[in-house]
Amino acid sequence: MASRIKYLWLLVFQVILVILFCVFVRYDGDNKVNLRGYEDTHVMIYVGFGFLMTFLMKYCYGAVGINWLLAALVAQWSIITQGLFHMKDMIIPLNKKVILEADVMSATVLITFGALLGRASVNQLLFIAIVEALIGSLNLYIIEKVIEGSDVGGSMGIHTYGAFFGLAVSAAWVCCRKKRDQPQDDDGHPLEKPSYMTDVTSMIGSVFLFIYWPSFNAALTATDADYQRAVVNTYLSLAACSVVTFALSAFLRHGKFEMEHIQNSTLAGGVGVGTVCNMHITPGGAIIIGMGAAFVSVFGFAKLKASIYNNCPCLFLYLTISALTISLCEYIWR
Amino acid sequence: MASRIKYLWLLVFQVILVILFCVFVRYDGDNKVNLRGYEDTHVMIYVGFGFLMTFLMKYCYGAVGINWLLAALVAQWSIITQGLFHMKDMIIPLNKKVILEADVMSATVLITFGALLGRASVNQLLFIAIVEALIGSLNLYIIEKVIEGSDVGGSMGIHTYGAFFGLAVSAAWVCCRKKRDQPQDDDGHPLEKPSYMTDVTSMIGSVFLFIYWPSFNAALTATDADYQRAVVNTYLSLAACSVVTFALSAFLRHGKFEMEHIQNSTLAGGVGVGTVCNMHITPGGAIIIGMGAAFVSVFGFAKLKASIYNNCPCLFLYLTISALTISLCEYIWR
Amino acid sequence: MASRIKYLWLLVFQVILVILFCVFVRYDGDNKVNLRGYEDTHVMIYVGFGFLMTFLMKYCYGAVGINWLLAALVAQWSIITQGLFHMKDMIIPLNKKVILEADVMSATVLITFGALLGRASVNQLLFIAIVEALIGSLNLYIIEKVIEGSDVGGSMGIHTYGAFFGLAVSAAWVCCRKKRDQPQDDDGHPLEKPSYMTDVTSMIGSVFLFIYWPSFNAALTATDADYQRAVVNTYLSLAACSVVTFALSAFLRHGKFEMEHIQNSTLAGGVGVGTVCNMHITPGGAIIIGMGAAFVSVFGFAKLKASIYNNCPCLFLYLTISALTISLCEYIWR
Repeated sequence: MASRIKYLWLLVFQVILVILFCVFVRYDGDNKVNLRGYEDTHVMIYVGFGFLMTFLMKYCYGAVGINWLLAALVAQWSIITQGLFHMKDMIIPLNKKVILEADVMSATVLITFGALLGRASVNQLLFIAIVEALIGSLNLYIIEKVIEGSDVGGSMGIHTYGAFFGLAVSAAWVCCRKKRDQPQDDDGHPLEKPSYMTDVTSMIGSVFLFIYWPSFNAALTATDADYQRAVVNTYLSLAACSVVTFALSAFLRHGKFEMEHIQNSTLAGGVGVGTVCNMHITPGGAIIIGMGAAFVSVFGFAKLKASIYNNCPCLFLYLTISALTISLCEYIWR
Repeated sequence: MASRIKYLWLLVFQVILVILFCVFVRYDGDNKVNLRGYEDTHVMIYVGFGFLMTFLMKYCYGAVGINWLLAALVAQWSIITQGLFHMKDMIIPLNKKVILEADVMSATVLITFGALLGRASVNQLLFIAIVEALIGSLNLYIIEKVIEGSDVGGSMGIHTYGAFFGLAVSAAWVCCRKKRDQPQDDDGHPLEKPSYMTDVTSMIGSVFLFIYWPSFNAALTATDADYQRAVVNTYLSLAACSVVTFALSAFLRHGKFEMEHIQNSTLAGGVGVGTVCNMHITPGGAIIIGMGAAFVSVFGFAKLKASIYNNCPCLFLYLTISALTISLCEYIWR
Repeated sequence: MASRIKYLWLLVFQVILVILFCVFVRYDGDNKVNLRGYEDTHVMIYVGFGFLMTFLMKYCYGAVGINWLLAALVAQWSIITQGLFHMKDMIIPLNKKVILEADVMSATVLITFGALLGRASVNQLLFIAIVEALIGSLNLYIIEKVIEGSDVGGSMGIHTYGAFFGLAVSAAWVCCRKKRDQPQDDDGHPLEKPSYMTDVTSMIGSVFLFIYWPSFNAALTATDADYQRAVVNTYLSLAACSVVTFALSAFLRHGKFEMEHIQNSTLAGGVGVGTVCNMHITPGGAIIIGMGAAFVSVFGFAKLKASIYNNCPCLFLYLTISALTISLCEYIWR
């Protein structure tokens, strides 16, 4: 009976959500908004993150399914949490832009999820997601309104925040648990091993993330000129990052391409250029950022893999790249 | 030799189609139409429905391939059948909107296909598709022009009609055949068992259906305000439906998530809100509809699974949800 | 150590690229361009071509991964090579249209890749890609500016060029090597055999190519009317081609559908109509082209399969269809 009611609190939370929606949320009159990156961001969230995380054999279901559950929960919850900071007359206005911003908060949570995959239980992940969305909304508010920082692709507000949050939770975990709950199969082997087919399904996620990253970075830009620069810069950064990742992967693996590099480091270019993608960094500058992101990501991945955080590679690449980019940008364009 | 000419009638039918096209169909001058949901609906039809139905092991080829054949045939055929009711001067005008409406008719046929998968032969499915598209066009005409009903997402004209049609054919089948043709593998086990990898490929279908359902429901709306409300309502309904489906699935399955629920019932929110998605049902109302759809779908699925229609779960969920929604709407908004 | 530096020249090439970008490439002021087919073409390149080529068991990684590497390299390189012919004041302008045209050149290279899959090494493929993009840019320039030919969907400039290039390289290969390097598994069986699951992943590629081909053919059209005709014609041609492919496949295979036909020949309709898709060929004319393409492709595939080029079926279908279409068009519309 205990297992039956394990997730019933979700129903209660959903009922609380619907009450909050009925009381506070109303359609926004501004229906001219025709955001270009809306559907593309959805593909990234549900297909991209979902299938990317199928690389661990035996976590395929969990990866796509739990990813879906987390995203669907956070999409609703963060409309409320982000809306708290944008209320007019006690009403949270709702339009496609608000839904896109809620999706973006889902991305934050899913990055943390990547760091904790196979380590935390579903209930723990859900709890972390709810807390993280709340704090994340405050964080975004501070970046946008208090610091008035420029972070159009969300590299600071989404990726770095998501990665740090995951790092903090993950570190706390390791200290408390000391790997006792390392999941194993019946013969005592760890389950965290990719198989041939799961690597292929994981590539579905990588490829869709690669394709729609330009739209994601550009989704919240203000003008057409900004939009085009964001798309062009992100695409060039990703392409250069991919080429360098393949070259470095073969260098480290004696002429073979390492699947884990290709699934993860190819995307570092999108994160790396995120904060500055709408600025006049020139096409060459975008390519340089992409190349740098690949270096940091592939070498960071290779060096840090053996550490305690051996199943949260995404974490480190996001951390290092974001740090790199931010300091680079400060140095060059300010 | 007999098996060689098994599908040659398809060629004859295609020749009849091309003659009908040459005689009756002309480009429409109205080329301003830039329908937003056009490509998205294609993804739903060919990727969504196709891969969703790969969940039965040994039907992977059949699912994606036959899905493709049916959709490609009905897409052409229903331009003619729907055009019959919109002819001007004996000419059927052709533009992107007409192709979108033909896609929508393909969706109707594919819902019936879902109820008959693994039971009917390909030739039988093709015959059913041709008849169903003809009657379905008449049905849509009656809903739109005679009753003047409001059915923007097509929950009545597409989903309920498709499900009822499949139910009728399926019932007739069961009465006549008495399960003699239940497909089995070499050892006498039924083939209708999902495997690990087919569940993963099936999730590709589910996820794409989830992503593009808002576009699908909104595709034929008239104004920008309607479009935005349709997208926002459908998305909220789907998100709430997903959360509740996970919670209920774990309740029924003693703390485990049932793959069949997650593949099917998560989408009930999209069907449930379809008919009213462009109306002022408020964000909270959309979430309530999504939660109700999940309840009806998960419990209906659990209760009716043991009946004779054991491989047409979609059927019942569509039926019940549509009935629920329509009565709910009549009660509240009229 | 030798294997470590096997791909280091890629880094050198990438550095050359970044220097060329820094010196010559600048953002274009024309930021109004909002090309509709931009994201769709990306999906075709990275998902479509990538997964289509997973049909060979043991080449799944290679197919998606190398496809990605080639596309990312050529996307950057062909901005330079195509820009050479459009320079103003020694500056190559960069906007979304230029990136779309670079994607299109990636498609050319990937068609050649299809003909050489499992035969050439990665370094050979990269070298071929770099040379092919250079010559291909010259070819496109000649078609557009010197001959002033009409080739809106790129059937001549992309598909036929890509296929001929692949044919030439492949023929040279066969003469020199005499199949010594036919890849084999441990038991001496050739590796070029599809498996059940790889056929399913390959269908992911086919289906996405099918879906976005109308956008691809229409991407570079000039007016809204042209855009709509291109979409409608391509879609009708593809649908008719699919139906006829299924019928003929069953005719040749004694009532069974051949997976190789369905993965490849269904798409012949998109290539076949490419050159003329924006013209007034009438809906019936588009269907006739699609049906003809299916005939040529399925029978060509069946007859030529046994020849020395047994793993480059795409090649022949593209060649024959393009030839057919071009002569047909010249005959009818000129």
